[in-house]
Amino acid sequence: MKVDLNADLGESFGAYKCGMDEEVARYISSANIACGFHASDPSVMKRTVCMAKDNHVAIGAHPGYPDLQGFGRRNMAVSPDDLKNMVQYQIGALNAFCRAMNVPLKHVKPHGAMYNMAAKDEKLANAIAEAVMEVNPELILLGLSGSFLIATADRVGLKTASEVFADRAYQSDGSLVPRSMEGAVICDEEAVVRRSIRMVKEGAVTSIDGKDIPIKADSICLHGDGENAVLFAKMIREELVKASIEVTSIEYVVE
Amino acid sequence: MKVDLNADLGESFGAYKCGMDEEVARYISSANIACGFHASDPSVMKRTVCMAKDNHVAIGAHPGYPDLQGFGRRNMAVSPDDLKNMVQYQIGALNAFCRAMNVPLKHVKPHGAMYNMAAKDEKLANAIAEAVMEVNPELILLGLSGSFLIATADRVGLKTASEVFADRAYQSDGSLVPRSMEGAVICDEEAVVRRSIRMVKEGAVTSIDGKDIPIKADSICLHGDGENAVLFAKMIREELVKASIEVTSIEYVVE
Amino acid sequence: MKVDLNADLGESFGAYKCGMDEEVARYISSANIACGFHASDPSVMKRTVCMAKDNHVAIGAHPGYPDLQGFGRRNMAVSPDDLKNMVQYQIGALNAFCRAMNVPLKHVKPHGAMYNMAAKDEKLANAIAEAVMEVNPELILLGLSGSFLIATADRVGLKTASEVFADRAYQSDGSLVPRSMEGAVICDEEAVVRRSIRMVKEGAVTSIDGKDIPIKADSICLHGDGENAVLFAKMIREELVKASIEVTSIEYVVE
Amino acid sequence: MKVDLNADLGESFGAYKCGMDEEVARYISSANIACGFHASDPSVMKRTVCMAKDNHVAIGAHPGYPDLQGFGRRNMAVSPDDLKNMVQYQIGALNAFCRAMNVPLKHVKPHGAMYNMAAKDEKLANAIAEAVMEVNPELILLGLSGSFLIATADRVGLKTASEVFADRAYQSDGSLVPRSMEGAVICDEEAVVRRSIRMVKEGAVTSIDGKDIPIKADSICLHGDGENAVLFAKMIREELVKASIEVTSIEYVVE
Repeated sequence: MKVDLNADLGESFGAYKCGMDEEVARYISSANIACGFHASDPSVMKRTVCMAKDNHVAIGAHPGYPDLQGFGRRNMAVSPDDLKNMVQYQIGALNAFCRAMNVPLKHVKPHGAMYNMAAKDEKLANAIAEAVMEVNPELILLGLSGSFLIATADRVGLKTASEVFADRAYQSDGSLVPRSMEGAVICDEEAVVRRSIRMVKEGAVTSIDGKDIPIKADSICLHGDGENAVLFAKMIREELVKASIEVTSIEYVVE
Repeated sequence: MKVDLNADLGESFGAYKCGMDEEVARYISSANIACGFHASDPSVMKRTVCMAKDNHVAIGAHPGYPDLQGFGRRNMAVSPDDLKNMVQYQIGALNAFCRAMNVPLKHVKPHGAMYNMAAKDEKLANAIAEAVMEVNPELILLGLSGSFLIATADRVGLKTASEVFADRAYQSDGSLVPRSMEGAVICDEEAVVRRSIRMVKEGAVTSIDGKDIPIKADSICLHGDGENAVLFAKMIREELVKASIEVTSIEYVVE
Repeated sequence: MKVDLNADLGESFGAYKCGMDEEVARYISSANIACGFHASDPSVMKRTVCMAKDNHVAIGAHPGYPDLQGFGRRNMAVSPDDLKNMVQYQIGALNAFCRAMNVPLKHVKPHGAMYNMAAKDEKLANAIAEAVMEVNPELILLGLSGSFLIATADRVGLKTASEVFADRAYQSDGSLVPRSMEGAVICDEEAVVRRSIRMVKEGAVTSIDGKDIPIKADSICLHGDGENAVLFAKMIREELVKASIEVTSIEYVVE
Repeated sequence: MKVDLNADLGESFGAYKCGMDEEVARYISSANIACGFHASDPSVMKRTVCMAKDNHVAIGAHPGYPDLQGFGRRNMAVSPDDLKNMVQYQIGALNAFCRAMNVPLKHVKPHGAMYNMAAKDEKLANAIAEAVMEVNPELILLGLSGSFLIATADRVGLKTASEVFADRAYQSDGSLVPRSMEGAVICDEEAVVRRSIRMVKEGAVTSIDGKDIPIKADSICLHGDGENAVLFAKMIREELVKASIEVTSIEYVVE
């Protein structure tokens, strides 16, 4: 039994600092590093790659829409071709810092609106999968468990990893309950831990309307902002280990 | 006797088209492709890499300052560390399209204000040379003949190529006569051709005040905008060949 | 019988030139001037305001989404509050140049995706109408004839002007036939002129499926790019005058 | 005896929060509000104008260079014409929110590199002064005491206010000791208060090399970031009042 713990790191920008990257990096096994479109800049990226390397955290590219003001969270009607190109651009940019630091780039996880749109839209999913495949077929695509992104990347021939959200409620079709709905976020930390362990061990989770649904948990998404996020990262890692689940980076989970 | 002919390609942006890239690509041996900071966007970069590949033109990265409105021509007080990071970012971004198209990235030529500032400032020159060295030590740095950029890159251990400007007057210290001064641009095309051939064959050029000065001409910079630029590119290529000078890409000139 | 002829001007950006603004300005009565979000920059705005003033063309703000690469044509999920603020920002920016040049700002016409989304979404329409109302209740809102934007602005108490597209086919519900559908653009110039005159004189147009539908034509939208656009602008102005329709700026049409 | 206390507010951007604006706003009499080029966005600007109005703080525009990543602190070789236009653009943008909130715009203070460059370069100073004059001749230009910016704005006919930095050492020519030099920042709060009171009452300050130099203190610049900044703002206001100096906004100081 193995699982990866991932978090988004390197979301500062110029004089703007955010996230508790150094603290969170101690407890995760994979970092999704912003690439300058929805957050970050070249100097933040360099620092974050160094920091991930120092903490023996696997490095992934975290491409987003070109919308710094909206933090990549606003849906944008980007064509599949343009999407493919902006994903390749961002992977390449991050990879330069990996080469400069002599550390491998391991995975790609789209950010925010790009992640959500590609989960449901096959053309966008295909654009992202092809983008990754063409740049480096060894990269693992990290996407929402049960999404079009995972299905499409599998079909294209990429290695994939299915991501679950420990503190989010699921609908019975396997999609996340939207944040705007009541009950979307699970605040009871013990419940979150229990759900996490069950998702990994049994491949199942209870949906918001009480049904048991199948779910694939290769990687659990953690948050990187705020002291509570750090405390929770520490706790869930400890609880997973206690439950005899090894926390290790994506490549060893999906091999 | 060999020389490279280079031009800046891929400077369109979104709906904004500029340059006569397809015409110019027929006559040059190396293309400096903009990387999205001073010009271009991911989709323009992809198209330009494809076009260069189709024309058997060697591909180089053309990083610039993050100043789209100023087209990277305005001096900016960027620190050496930030400069190094923004050069690595841009090289990586372009390299992603080279990998996707299965064509090698061969050289790096800084753009506009970055090129001019690094020609005279050793710290900036060093930042650029280290940036290239760390990302890929096989890349050739293309810079102004006789500049700090060439000297520093040589010292760092990079392969370098010295660029000359066929239609620009030189001062007796080997620097370009600023465009604001009279006589900076040489309009007589025959004179430009004659100077080019002499620079390649004799390693010398006559300065604006009539002295013969040494100059290293590994690559001649051509312009890519306007019909005259295309006609001139065609003519200079033909005249070089007539003068028994082989036009070939940078790597074969500097080997 | 009066009608306004409007065109989008001032869409250049930095070194990127586009549009035949000076030629088109001779034939239109109102200019929609880009405000730096989807196109333009402060120096282009200043020049365009001067040019419009010199040509006695009424000046309007042409706010767009913050998407220079997509030219403001990509739908973006901007919240009504953020939309309201970005419209006010852009109106204010253009108004500074009007004050500096001592020429009044007369109207506001949203651009591209913002125009299209606000035509169909009442919350977005309301955000734009309130934005204009708060900044200057004397400004006229120019929107698609029959759209939510016009209805909402009327309700908020703004003066409005209804825009028609002479060379575009209409569906029987009064909306434009999408460009992706066959027959969306009418290429026969005589037909375009005939339709224009009828829209102004009779307040009616024939839809793509052959029905006569009511339409309000306070202003006809012309294009500003390409020589054909200039020739057509000249022709339609002459034909309107021959048909005893006065071409005059929006404020005199809607008074 | 009167003096204004000013601070830079509204420097957040999108999801990036910075500054303790609400706390600082209680102690200052004038706010310099960022305009979206070096910091801020339309929604932050709207909120900050509201907040300043609620706190009865006079509102000024704080235009900067278009360099969000560098926070407007990097020198840029912007031409005087482009500078003039970017200042007018930013004043207009902020003014839209003032009109929407029905509160007057009172002053303009350039930010960071623009402020420093215009202090020493007469052409840039003139561009800024003309920009303000043309947009609204009633606006007060706030600049470094003894700088070219103040001299030029005076000559152009603008009202000006001279700014002093309570916690910064001065050279004997009246310029600030660069931050890179030892002794540039004065950390002893009592000394800072003493210097402030003397600058206001006597129009003099002791330079870093021990000479008494004349200085005009219409407004004292305070910082807005960090708890210490807030505590210091509170203290200096109280100490000024104890010293029988009235703290009031710029227009009442320079009238």
